[in-house]
Amino acid sequence: MLDKLREECGVFGVYGHPEASNLTYLGLHALQHRGQESAGIVSSDGTILRSHRQMGMVSDIFNQDILDKLIGCNAIGHVRYSTSGSSLLKNVQPFVVSYSRGGIAVAHNGNFVNAKLLRDRLEGNGSIFQSTMDTEIVIHLLAASRESSLLDRIGDAVSAVKGAYSMLFLTENEMIAVRDPYGFRPLVLGRLKDAYVVSSETCALDLIEAEYIREIEPGEVVLIDDNGLTAYKLFPSLNRFCIFELIYFSRPDSTVFGRNVYTARKEMGRQLARENPVDADIVVPVPDSGIPAAIGYAEESGIPFEAGLIRSHYVGRTFIEPRQSIRHFGVKLKLNPVKGFFKGKRVIIVDDSIVRGTTSRKIIDMVRNAGAAEIHVRISSPPTAYPCFYGIDTPTKTELIASSYTVSEINEFLTSNTLAYLSIEGLKTSIKNNGHEFCSACFTGEYPIAPPIDQGSRQLTLFEKEIAVV
Amino acid sequence: MLDKLREECGVFGVYGHPEASNLTYLGLHALQHRGQESAGIVSSDGTILRSHRQMGMVSDIFNQDILDKLIGCNAIGHVRYSTSGSSLLKNVQPFVVSYSRGGIAVAHNGNFVNAKLLRDRLEGNGSIFQSTMDTEIVIHLLAASRESSLLDRIGDAVSAVKGAYSMLFLTENEMIAVRDPYGFRPLVLGRLKDAYVVSSETCALDLIEAEYIREIEPGEVVLIDDNGLTAYKLFPSLNRFCIFELIYFSRPDSTVFGRNVYTARKEMGRQLARENPVDADIVVPVPDSGIPAAIGYAEESGIPFEAGLIRSHYVGRTFIEPRQSIRHFGVKLKLNPVKGFFKGKRVIIVDDSIVRGTTSRKIIDMVRNAGAAEIHVRISSPPTAYPCFYGIDTPTKTELIASSYTVSEINEFLTSNTLAYLSIEGLKTSIKNNGHEFCSACFTGEYPIAPPIDQGSRQLTLFEKEIAVV
Amino acid sequence: MLDKLREECGVFGVYGHPEASNLTYLGLHALQHRGQESAGIVSSDGTILRSHRQMGMVSDIFNQDILDKLIGCNAIGHVRYSTSGSSLLKNVQPFVVSYSRGGIAVAHNGNFVNAKLLRDRLEGNGSIFQSTMDTEIVIHLLAASRESSLLDRIGDAVSAVKGAYSMLFLTENEMIAVRDPYGFRPLVLGRLKDAYVVSSETCALDLIEAEYIREIEPGEVVLIDDNGLTAYKLFPSLNRFCIFELIYFSRPDSTVFGRNVYTARKEMGRQLARENPVDADIVVPVPDSGIPAAIGYAEESGIPFEAGLIRSHYVGRTFIEPRQSIRHFGVKLKLNPVKGFFKGKRVIIVDDSIVRGTTSRKIIDMVRNAGAAEIHVRISSPPTAYPCFYGIDTPTKTELIASSYTVSEINEFLTSNTLAYLSIEGLKTSIKNNGHEFCSACFTGEYPIAPPIDQGSRQLTLFEKEIAVV
Amino acid sequence: MLDKLREECGVFGVYGHPEASNLTYLGLHALQHRGQESAGIVSSDGTILRSHRQMGMVSDIFNQDILDKLIGCNAIGHVRYSTSGSSLLKNVQPFVVSYSRGGIAVAHNGNFVNAKLLRDRLEGNGSIFQSTMDTEIVIHLLAASRESSLLDRIGDAVSAVKGAYSMLFLTENEMIAVRDPYGFRPLVLGRLKDAYVVSSETCALDLIEAEYIREIEPGEVVLIDDNGLTAYKLFPSLNRFCIFELIYFSRPDSTVFGRNVYTARKEMGRQLARENPVDADIVVPVPDSGIPAAIGYAEESGIPFEAGLIRSHYVGRTFIEPRQSIRHFGVKLKLNPVKGFFKGKRVIIVDDSIVRGTTSRKIIDMVRNAGAAEIHVRISSPPTAYPCFYGIDTPTKTELIASSYTVSEINEFLTSNTLAYLSIEGLKTSIKNNGHEFCSACFTGEYPIAPPIDQGSRQLTLFEKEIAVV
Repeated sequence: MLDKLREECGVFGVYGHPEASNLTYLGLHALQHRGQESAGIVSSDGTILRSHRQMGMVSDIFNQDILDKLIGCNAIGHVRYSTSGSSLLKNVQPFVVSYSRGGIAVAHNGNFVNAKLLRDRLEGNGSIFQSTMDTEIVIHLLAASRESSLLDRIGDAVSAVKGAYSMLFLTENEMIAVRDPYGFRPLVLGRLKDAYVVSSETCALDLIEAEYIREIEPGEVVLIDDNGLTAYKLFPSLNRFCIFELIYFSRPDSTVFGRNVYTARKEMGRQLARENPVDADIVVPVPDSGIPAAIGYAEESGIPFEAGLIRSHYVGRTFIEPRQSIRHFGVKLKLNPVKGFFKGKRVIIVDDSIVRGTTSRKIIDMVRNAGAAEIHVRISSPPTAYPCFYGIDTPTKTELIASSYTVSEINEFLTSNTLAYLSIEGLKTSIKNNGHEFCSACFTGEYPIAPPIDQGSRQLTLFEKEIAVV
Repeated sequence: MLDKLREECGVFGVYGHPEASNLTYLGLHALQHRGQESAGIVSSDGTILRSHRQMGMVSDIFNQDILDKLIGCNAIGHVRYSTSGSSLLKNVQPFVVSYSRGGIAVAHNGNFVNAKLLRDRLEGNGSIFQSTMDTEIVIHLLAASRESSLLDRIGDAVSAVKGAYSMLFLTENEMIAVRDPYGFRPLVLGRLKDAYVVSSETCALDLIEAEYIREIEPGEVVLIDDNGLTAYKLFPSLNRFCIFELIYFSRPDSTVFGRNVYTARKEMGRQLARENPVDADIVVPVPDSGIPAAIGYAEESGIPFEAGLIRSHYVGRTFIEPRQSIRHFGVKLKLNPVKGFFKGKRVIIVDDSIVRGTTSRKIIDMVRNAGAAEIHVRISSPPTAYPCFYGIDTPTKTELIASSYTVSEINEFLTSNTLAYLSIEGLKTSIKNNGHEFCSACFTGEYPIAPPIDQGSRQLTLFEKEIAVV
Repeated sequence: MLDKLREECGVFGVYGHPEASNLTYLGLHALQHRGQESAGIVSSDGTILRSHRQMGMVSDIFNQDILDKLIGCNAIGHVRYSTSGSSLLKNVQPFVVSYSRGGIAVAHNGNFVNAKLLRDRLEGNGSIFQSTMDTEIVIHLLAASRESSLLDRIGDAVSAVKGAYSMLFLTENEMIAVRDPYGFRPLVLGRLKDAYVVSSETCALDLIEAEYIREIEPGEVVLIDDNGLTAYKLFPSLNRFCIFELIYFSRPDSTVFGRNVYTARKEMGRQLARENPVDADIVVPVPDSGIPAAIGYAEESGIPFEAGLIRSHYVGRTFIEPRQSIRHFGVKLKLNPVKGFFKGKRVIIVDDSIVRGTTSRKIIDMVRNAGAAEIHVRISSPPTAYPCFYGIDTPTKTELIASSYTVSEINEFLTSNTLAYLSIEGLKTSIKNNGHEFCSACFTGEYPIAPPIDQGSRQLTLFEKEIAVV
Repeated sequence: MLDKLREECGVFGVYGHPEASNLTYLGLHALQHRGQESAGIVSSDGTILRSHRQMGMVSDIFNQDILDKLIGCNAIGHVRYSTSGSSLLKNVQPFVVSYSRGGIAVAHNGNFVNAKLLRDRLEGNGSIFQSTMDTEIVIHLLAASRESSLLDRIGDAVSAVKGAYSMLFLTENEMIAVRDPYGFRPLVLGRLKDAYVVSSETCALDLIEAEYIREIEPGEVVLIDDNGLTAYKLFPSLNRFCIFELIYFSRPDSTVFGRNVYTARKEMGRQLARENPVDADIVVPVPDSGIPAAIGYAEESGIPFEAGLIRSHYVGRTFIEPRQSIRHFGVKLKLNPVKGFFKGKRVIIVDDSIVRGTTSRKIIDMVRNAGAAEIHVRISSPPTAYPCFYGIDTPTKTELIASSYTVSEINEFLTSNTLAYLSIEGLKTSIKNNGHEFCSACFTGEYPIAPPIDQGSRQLTLFEKEIAVV
């Protein structure tokens, strides 16, 4: 899926390690796939919070000079692709403020569905907002709480918000991890010597060689301070894990929601082959995200796996599109078919999902032009027909091709010979989801939390009207 | 005075001109001497506020691309040298937020003496702070006001703050100028065709060829919107204009508090010559700020004026000090005596003030090494013995040489042959201050508003403890 | 092979297209894998040569503003990893000068073995050198030639140099492509409408949708001007194509030396499996370069292919290594094993080559720590035991692990259970090399052109001694 | 003179001091007024030359990191405003190359009148040129010389060039200063402990506290190496010092050609008052360059000196001109009259020269608008009617207002009440020029060396045609 749904964020934190900001930098690097627009780190040395936040990629933002200034044994960090609030410096996280009890920083992965309502109410009571991120709301709520302990204030605040949140708070001498009762977004706990580590994915623990302990449970609050770790259950767990983390978002080397991602994706590919077999010569993945499912499909079908589409590693975000009118330019910069390889072959193209369909069509054109005799598209997830309100940047419903067209119509649009998706039952089987503990609203439209009535583009416009900082 | 007191800020605004942000850019350029650490412009096109703020000098921060994005017929701007809050991006003005009534931006020249108290009270009521500037306080007060009109909200807010403020507010469709009842900082009103212009100094009106109308009065609020200009008197005028604006801060080509700055400084020099004559061969200013007083001194005394100290125009803030141990390096980069010129001469050095005394001593060394037979230092203001709490960045009391030492002791420290200051009475005569309408607390310690009990470094530390963003 | 041999350069040129510099920018982007240190484009509009050259990656160096200034219908470009001359701005290509006949630019892929000798001779005759690139030599020779036509001057110049060169020259109204008689480096000719295109690899033709015509032949000179294309045979072809282009350097989607790269690599993997079978559970490539051979090995052996090592796409060159002592850090940033996947498995790791062996050892450690029961390393080329003098940045002989150690000793060093390389005969079979037209000196030490007697580090030191520009 | 003639260059060198590059950085800083487009330093540690050169101002180009890399006890530096060759990076000096005897760098202040001829001849003999600076020619000549010693090679080279040159060469272990027989440009020798220092002006010696020894004589070559200093007379001295150095270019605190610049300028002002008295109320300089002459004029005439035009210190080169149509914008950014000061006054404006006249006219408008009753312009040099070919960037003859118009016509153009220039005899008297040792060709057209027949814009165009690097 080159025509990506975009993951919004990754969070990472360390409490109690002399190299806290260095480790957080590494952790964010391992989570870079979860957000490439901006990043930030806030450190604490027990008395002062220090931060550095910037637009850009982790390795461009930080250097040793900056990391050396982020002193202290505690740090949290954030990588971001904006879901709420525009892509502006003021919207970069972690969000840091001063309130009655001192300093506090927050890094947030998720999305509040009642943000507009809460913001209106807070402004009505005299609050001022400096960003357009819904994350700012939770800090206002926390600061306005009448509770005296930070834990109770956080309890107050998250009781008011509805939606998806895997959050890390950092004060002068505490780090707090909170996960919403549905556990939409992943959040795991690890240990590195005497330090505790919290991360969106396990691959970040691997990089710093921290030991994986367990997931932060849905509805749980974990407080880490100099006395160690204390866990509280704020809400009963109503597990609705985001199924798309397994299909596309998380790194294949992570273990997410107790599943190994690579193995889950291979199994989806196997099940896809069982459900939608086709006679062909080769199985070719759309790299890199389609690779595990394609291997699974190839194994199950016995048709050879071939890496026939080559991906360029040098496509950055600053790439300029020269003016000339070359067809399908965007995709050509990223992918190129192996010369002469497809000639006369019956090809199965395996990808993880289709969003708008335009990219898939360009890939099919490209493979067709390379001489393929037949092209059979196989998608290792069901049709993505409903937008996500829990932290994934989906286009509006009308832009999702599967929301308006049948599989047959999509096949026609793509110009493929055949098109087939994995069934929702097949998907659940692949991930051994007997307990129905996953959110699959993007496929079914069955939303665990009601989306905002007045959502989407209009709501964002209202927000943006107030302040649009260059 | 190379060893400067630092002016904190300059503000500039335009309402009703199609090139509002271009004009604001020019206005800020003319006010650059009032603050070189950071600058910003916020524009409004009637519906949206847009801003660009950055560390650095005006001409480095803005380019045509950026100005082109700051669309709209209304704009306010700010140049800053930090007096409260550290020199960090988040402390750059104009400050822009969203509150219950929409967007609002503020540019502030001055300092609140009860900032700590107000901030504590606001945080106690649940407010969160993202900067360490006292300017943020006034926006919280305004947002929390129960009044419905913006004017009444501003009235509410400024009734709570004590201290110096010449402020400009900008909303989607209003620009409001407010000046504290003492009128510590200057603020003038001008007109350019159909547009109104507000500026810290008249030199910015000159640059854009706007017509000078009048000063915004102490205690006055001026509201400019599409219906034109409406002025209100919030408080009775208690004129206590900052006398240092005339001595050093304002540009000599400005008219400030109804006085022509260049003429006032020349008159100080004349009066200085009357009070403290000395037999000598030449009168030499410390350029550029000492020039007008030196011309006055030379005229009154009949001793020739000579530009014997040459100032380099290329000393920027990024200049690195090579490691080698050359004596008096900092001053040498900025000033050099004309070769062979001082040999055997009896020299009167005229400067506007002495802060710590270290720079003056280096200049005297330099002139002595150039062969001067006698060096008589004449200062065109009284000894600066008390810190300012109304918007000037003075060092703490103990660092002000005149707070601990007599003129004779200072003369000994400087190694000059004689040293004399202008008397406070002589100063008042020079500026025709019959009505006692000036604040001269830095000379007399008679503060119009009581300074914070727990002021200076300690207060700042408390502030900074909460959040110190790299 | 993460512990890479580094390709030195890629060249690209367009003659006769109104978007020449835009197309060259795209071409260089497609050749980015051939050199990531610096890049440059020189354009010609018939009367003036214009250039932009800089350190960095193609997409960072150029923007639309810069490309718009590179006007003209003709352009050549270059991407570079330095092999001769240090990584300094002055060594960035294309090299542009003025000589008696006007302006001339050159982009060079290759290396001269008699550079030191020629440079000494030229300097002895009064030439001055501004770079440390051997490319500068060819321009001096060309300028000093007594011939009148450019073609003859180029003939003169290349008759004097010995070594590898695929070069593009651009004057105000001619583009000339030259390839050494051995044809070490690839160089192909294409056509886009009325324009001619020359490129190091076909993948760059694909991107701009140019039609592939043929290779520039070894020993051939091709002149393109407004009268069209004229080809000359300067020297008889002595084909000794660089075999490493097929093993590792070229992109798998290119057709190089008449071979499809991806297919050749898969065939090497198949042959490797035939020569060195082993009983195991999975075949895992070192991504991305080991993928095609691993697929071939898996197919031939019947052992399942698994993408068990996940590569990070965000490792740039500016990545800072935090100070903490994590073992095998460099590799961990790039690769991570799929969690839990290797437990108890017998693993075949397939890579294309081993240079120093240190990286391979770290990968083996990593897989071992992930629980692998057995690790069998299979390399799809023979042991790299001899340095290259024809344009590849190999370490000195002593640093090449295969130059000093037997396969058994290397296996011990790597801590693998078994290690096997593809045989030289197997390699030749894989690429259907009946005509012995490949240079395999890096495996055999049989150099087609005698290397400089006093080569390697010492020669470079002599060069660098003369001018080392920061 | 805000509408400047532009000085082309300043050179500075240190031999034998452990902080050679730091000192050179400081020296260049003191010479910044001689060239603000680019700067560079080359250092030598006895075996290797290292350089850093860049577009921009000295304090922007260098930081401690860069200076720390420029190791060695010897260094030369250069600041530049381009006179020959365009303002491109490749034209930045010092120019550094490798030739048969090792590395050599050169920093050049001046201009060769036979550059085109020499360059054609060199290219005809096979030389290639990488810059468009005439400085490159001297290095080619030196490299091509058959002499064995460097001194003799330099002798060979400078015997071929005609024109103005004050040059510094640096090799691995020698620094050589050369000045043309006319001595057009200044060059002085100083000493700092055991080190020798060479500089364009004495103000740079002052800054690093070096002792002034003497001028490098016209026609002299001075070689400094580890054996100390050796001076040779290459040519007999034909003193024709550039009179404009005393009028405008050099800093007033420098001693140039044996004259104190400030005193010379004051004396010009005095002589101007004697020659061209006028009844008026105040004497106002165009700051900063007109200040010394204005003081002299005021003293001699007895009319009070007033600093009535205030100069902004914040006008950098990156200043963008907003689009709006404000009259006389460029000057207004730099100068503003003191408010209300000129009302009804008869004003004498003193400036050092008039180039095109457009700026002077804008200043007169400005002063007239400020209310002046009469404006009398007095220029402390004769009419500038002829272009310079010896290192000053004068416009073409037709652009020099005094080449085509009489004083009376210029007065009319300026809209001043009266206009008068210092006479050529008066100028010579002021500088005690009994020996006729100054070049005053810009006033008289009597060129000491015949200018190139085919000079000016056309010659430059030919040069630039060959290579124009973006």
